[in-house]
Amino acid sequence: MATENKDRPLTIAVDAMGGDKGPSEVLAGCAEAIRRGLTAELAVFGREDELEAGKNHSELAGHPISYIHAEDVIKMDDKPSRVLRRSKGTSMWQAIGHVKEGHADGIVSCGNTGALMAISRMQLKMIPGVDRPAASALWPSMNGHAVVLDVGANVEVTAEQLVQFAIMGEAYCRALMETDRPRVGLLNVGEEDLKGSTLIKNAAKILREADPEMNFTGFVEGDDISRGEVDVVVTDGFTGNVALKTAEGTARMIGDWVKEALTANLLSKAGAALMMPSLKRLKARMDPASVNGAPLLGLNGLVVKSHGGSTAEGFASALMKTEKLAKKPFIEPIAKTVAKVTKRAENVEVEELTQAAAE
Amino acid sequence: MATENKDRPLTIAVDAMGGDKGPSEVLAGCAEAIRRGLTAELAVFGREDELEAGKNHSELAGHPISYIHAEDVIKMDDKPSRVLRRSKGTSMWQAIGHVKEGHADGIVSCGNTGALMAISRMQLKMIPGVDRPAASALWPSMNGHAVVLDVGANVEVTAEQLVQFAIMGEAYCRALMETDRPRVGLLNVGEEDLKGSTLIKNAAKILREADPEMNFTGFVEGDDISRGEVDVVVTDGFTGNVALKTAEGTARMIGDWVKEALTANLLSKAGAALMMPSLKRLKARMDPASVNGAPLLGLNGLVVKSHGGSTAEGFASALMKTEKLAKKPFIEPIAKTVAKVTKRAENVEVEELTQAAAE
Repeated sequence: MATENKDRPLTIAVDAMGGDKGPSEVLAGCAEAIRRGLTAELAVFGREDELEAGKNHSELAGHPISYIHAEDVIKMDDKPSRVLRRSKGTSMWQAIGHVKEGHADGIVSCGNTGALMAISRMQLKMIPGVDRPAASALWPSMNGHAVVLDVGANVEVTAEQLVQFAIMGEAYCRALMETDRPRVGLLNVGEEDLKGSTLIKNAAKILREADPEMNFTGFVEGDDISRGEVDVVVTDGFTGNVALKTAEGTARMIGDWVKEALTANLLSKAGAALMMPSLKRLKARMDPASVNGAPLLGLNGLVVKSHGGSTAEGFASALMKTEKLAKKPFIEPIAKTVAKVTKRAENVEVEELTQAAAE
Repeated sequence: MATENKDRPLTIAVDAMGGDKGPSEVLAGCAEAIRRGLTAELAVFGREDELEAGKNHSELAGHPISYIHAEDVIKMDDKPSRVLRRSKGTSMWQAIGHVKEGHADGIVSCGNTGALMAISRMQLKMIPGVDRPAASALWPSMNGHAVVLDVGANVEVTAEQLVQFAIMGEAYCRALMETDRPRVGLLNVGEEDLKGSTLIKNAAKILREADPEMNFTGFVEGDDISRGEVDVVVTDGFTGNVALKTAEGTARMIGDWVKEALTANLLSKAGAALMMPSLKRLKARMDPASVNGAPLLGLNGLVVKSHGGSTAEGFASALMKTEKLAKKPFIEPIAKTVAKVTKRAENVEVEELTQAAAE
């Protein structure tokens, strides 16, 4: 990154455009983050008139913020091919460029994920030794949260890429959760060494033999995620995306059922009124806004994706997370570990892959 | 199946051994099923002394049941290789043999899944044209249930196998849910035709072109399962198993949180007392026992797996389901459709598979 040895305050670039709720929600999110104690300077990119209309928050007036006009916007449904051809005037391109040029330590956007990935790769490049970026999710568990990756950027992966995901997830977890030796698990259909695909078994073998410093605990199953068995769950983007959306769907369905139970009749409404404080705690636990914001891992710069439909509260959480990550650089450690492990992995013997299990 | 043109009453074979809770729980489950209206005759296999000790239920005394002694038991942790060598004297082997010999229309067991699969394949064989058996799950959704398969029997599959899963799931759903034209979806990371792996895209192409009679709605995402978007969700056993366990883990975690909210203090306990009836409904909705029992699809005979830890209530549900399925044969239709679709699929052009997505 070009941001080393900088003599300016910590700065975060904000792409204010491209989210479902528009720049006024993003600016309300910036105000909320400042209320929560954000100290980083902000560089907000978007259409001048729309930024002007949204910046009437007292918190924004008292904080070091620069507003930078960008004529164009990348839309949620813009195709990746089109994005790369005509993205230069957009708020997203300019905000990422701000990081590239060393004026900011990270960038947050709630715009089109594919575009964010493509433009970030083009401008910031990958960490040397990392093949592809991975998308991560912070997953609620019985004892906190687990980092799960990849959750959708790579539907087909190699064993080596799973190893890279493990290294990136470990570094991210260490920066975010202040755990020294995060427990890392590979998502599988059983915990026994014999189970699972050749791909998964090869990845486990490489991790065990080429990265003995990692606290790799072996295979974990789907229900171990919410049980909090490990801090980092490694999987391919197909499985991770399906698992994440399945969990979200399940949580939403049960949430609806609980709501229905609480409001079924007068008696249950009276009951719900009595338990309001503990229901509030339940609601907060199930609120996705509190964990909003996920870095695109593997890029040679800090790029944080906020949910497209983020509320101001959600965007504030993403901003707070970006500030925290910007203060604890984890990109350099990833590069070092990947280089070391890749070299050692040359001597690990892995099985040939088959296209599908024969009889 | 050898059961066609039979001149005996509908009969279900029960493997009473091998579950976590032992044969007395299985027999209590038989009694509960009879209480719920089961009419099929039962043939119960297990150790004579243990069956004797467990059959003191009034419902059992008034129902046509035969008890057949089997000396041996397959344990939960028996390895598949060992199972095939020494299974002949076991209750599981004998109960499946009862179906093979035409004395029963189906068999239920809460024993070792791998053994049940292996012994069933050995004795009953596969439906002609079906490569491998699939495990299915009945998944709660906003408007009922969806059949999801495979949930763990095949960690690596071909496009042709996914097509077979779709045909089997469709036939099973039709028999179980009395829907004429079940909506069938392929689990993917997005609903657009361009998304997903080559394998998934090939399977979709074959389904569209070679089975136009199927109500195939295209791709569905993880959260569409609980949303009830389709009646049958088709996926490989790796993804399906991870998704199922992740959903179970999420449901368990939220269930614990809800319980905590209901019992946090005196006020919330008083509130919970007021809403007891609607909470009971919520509990019933979240109770896995109500959907217990899943047929192993693709076998040339009806084999239903009950959960290893089934309670009497859960085992009764599995028995009721087996009776329902035995009355509406779906194996013949699977064989016919697979033969037809396989022939037509020869003319469908599919893409070559790559081992992992290159840049």
